[in-house]
Amino acid sequence: MLNFKFKNTTDIRFGEGRIDSELHEVIAQFGNNVLLTYGGGSIKKSGLYERVLKALDGLNVTELSGIEPNPKIDSVRAGQKLVKENDIDVILAVGGGSVIDASKVIGSAKFYDADPWDLVLDPSKRHSINQLPIVDILTLSATGTEMNAGSVISNPETNQKLGSFGPNTPAVSFLDPTLTYSVSKWQTAAGSIDIFSHLTEQYFDKAENIDITRGQMEGIYRSVIKWAPIALQDPENYDARANLMWASTQALNGWVRVGNENGWTVHPIEHELSAYYDITHGVGLGILTPRWMKFVLSAETLPRFAEFGRNVWGINNDNDQVVAELAIQKTYDWVKSLEVPTTLPGVDITDDKHFDVMAASAVKVGNLATGAYVAMTPADVRGLFEQSMTTDGFED
Amino acid sequence: MLNFKFKNTTDIRFGEGRIDSELHEVIAQFGNNVLLTYGGGSIKKSGLYERVLKALDGLNVTELSGIEPNPKIDSVRAGQKLVKENDIDVILAVGGGSVIDASKVIGSAKFYDADPWDLVLDPSKRHSINQLPIVDILTLSATGTEMNAGSVISNPETNQKLGSFGPNTPAVSFLDPTLTYSVSKWQTAAGSIDIFSHLTEQYFDKAENIDITRGQMEGIYRSVIKWAPIALQDPENYDARANLMWASTQALNGWVRVGNENGWTVHPIEHELSAYYDITHGVGLGILTPRWMKFVLSAETLPRFAEFGRNVWGINNDNDQVVAELAIQKTYDWVKSLEVPTTLPGVDITDDKHFDVMAASAVKVGNLATGAYVAMTPADVRGLFEQSMTTDGFED
Repeated sequence: MLNFKFKNTTDIRFGEGRIDSELHEVIAQFGNNVLLTYGGGSIKKSGLYERVLKALDGLNVTELSGIEPNPKIDSVRAGQKLVKENDIDVILAVGGGSVIDASKVIGSAKFYDADPWDLVLDPSKRHSINQLPIVDILTLSATGTEMNAGSVISNPETNQKLGSFGPNTPAVSFLDPTLTYSVSKWQTAAGSIDIFSHLTEQYFDKAENIDITRGQMEGIYRSVIKWAPIALQDPENYDARANLMWASTQALNGWVRVGNENGWTVHPIEHELSAYYDITHGVGLGILTPRWMKFVLSAETLPRFAEFGRNVWGINNDNDQVVAELAIQKTYDWVKSLEVPTTLPGVDITDDKHFDVMAASAVKVGNLATGAYVAMTPADVRGLFEQSMTTDGFED
Repeated sequence: MLNFKFKNTTDIRFGEGRIDSELHEVIAQFGNNVLLTYGGGSIKKSGLYERVLKALDGLNVTELSGIEPNPKIDSVRAGQKLVKENDIDVILAVGGGSVIDASKVIGSAKFYDADPWDLVLDPSKRHSINQLPIVDILTLSATGTEMNAGSVISNPETNQKLGSFGPNTPAVSFLDPTLTYSVSKWQTAAGSIDIFSHLTEQYFDKAENIDITRGQMEGIYRSVIKWAPIALQDPENYDARANLMWASTQALNGWVRVGNENGWTVHPIEHELSAYYDITHGVGLGILTPRWMKFVLSAETLPRFAEFGRNVWGINNDNDQVVAELAIQKTYDWVKSLEVPTTLPGVDITDDKHFDVMAASAVKVGNLATGAYVAMTPADVRGLFEQSMTTDGFED
């Protein structure tokens, strides 16, 4: 159990109906000039946009819409212009991970006078400048951005999709599970797999004897495994949406990382897929994760897999190897049960033309040669991509 | 899953050796005038006192020592005098729950001009005034005070032991597991039982479908159950001390309470025992808890006990009633394995002369008639005390 620091000051407002009564006061504490950010307009269809504007009555609202999934640096550039021109005091991000991620970097870009892609390329730059407070209203349970300092920003010109960490987590996050009732099966599945993957990146860690953290993760895992299929079939099930939303937050607010040693593996590999093919991040993770598990399973990692199988999947068997292999198959089955593709051809990736350059980039960006749970070479990563072309190795 | 708010800004510095390098800067950010609070002098024996003074070199240090277990309002009164006279900017509490609890109320008392017992009696008073920042160095894993806003203060003149909640959690908490190496078996056991009890008060709750929170608690439970006996037998086992310390914090920082409905039961009952007999809080909890579990077990609560038995104690049995009863016996066995008394006569409470007045007070203070997981009358509480006089009902 390594030494660690933990501090997370985000003010969580969880539950139905808080926006109408609490949002105005929450925003107004930071000033009168608000940048309202959102995505493709689904918040207008759902009526949320009207509710938000009503709550903001009396404040000066500037809007930035059209922030896309896998948010692009161009949205940040547009936001930078607006926050400077309108002397914005606070950003209200209404949406999923993409809107909130972009808003965080825009919050830094107000205090930076050059191209904000610099801020993504050089993490130290964001920590040397101020950041506008971010208030968010989450509409998709997935990335955990609602209670962490991270963003993932894409640059289509350079085929880069990079993590960027600012100095602050959101000031206030409104988590209303009913706002996710309208999330599609596809996005519900992708978000749930993203949460599962966040846990996996942190559960499979070299650190020993951090039983509390791992035990907590096992509880979150079980909840996601249980409630994701229910949310798919019964989209207005409050308990399903509430557990997924809180799981999203818990899985990536730093809490279950404490005491850990190594970095992440599947995310940087998936980021290559999303950067080259713009596929849905969670779906990419669902394809890669079971293959990655097979890759890392060894005599050395067997005890962790056995724990995973018994405490997460409830497998009752005395043979660790049997438990481990069954746990990997169950992971595959769960992804498949969420009605998303389990191979790369399923997301229209049908040839290997970018595999080598993607593999090399994943190893470099993700520091997989030295910082991973199990080290990976570019050839190893290419192997994962190749294995993801078919269902071989799994009962399908 | 009820609506909830969650915000906890405590800055956690976990691990060995941080004090020497980080304490000065942490304290100095708040000002130069420091009130150093501690207990009976064990920190002088251990050398911690010298390390702390060295780290505080250059700051103006006033000391308040002698804060006792079950801290008394007189210590708060003495502290109030010192913080006012010396225009204290920040309180550094070095010790266990008692020292930190008292320091929090002293932090409020600086801004109050009458008897600080008023602040304990009327919670709203503390929220209407300022509070000095508290920095603590924890030396006992138990109460969770290191990351919450609560204190428990006793008034021997009135036989009252009351909870008091201020506006802020500690600003910074240093959690160094090695500082608990010297904690006695008795205190290690009592602290571990206290953690177990905090989980129990929150796990047995009427709220349905808060799977994430319950799943997290199950992980913390298993860790405490596993590591407490190891810490008893091998007091310098870092992993044991680290898991217990982090469990202490996790069990009572608000995290595992979110979405819950009802109040606590065993704590207010135990507070009567400590108030009348000054017994060790955790030992009292260990005596009462298995009897309380028997009292609340019913057809209605059976599903929760079955979950508790399977997910916390790992009991493999298809019969819920069998699982529940075995889980209660295992709870009793675990307390006993920690080498503490399991009956009231074991802590020298040998007659029932105060039982009626204690029972009436517990119901009133704890709001047990309407706010508990299972309602309790004074007669029910008296029954718990009576059952605690012998080992009847348990395999001992």
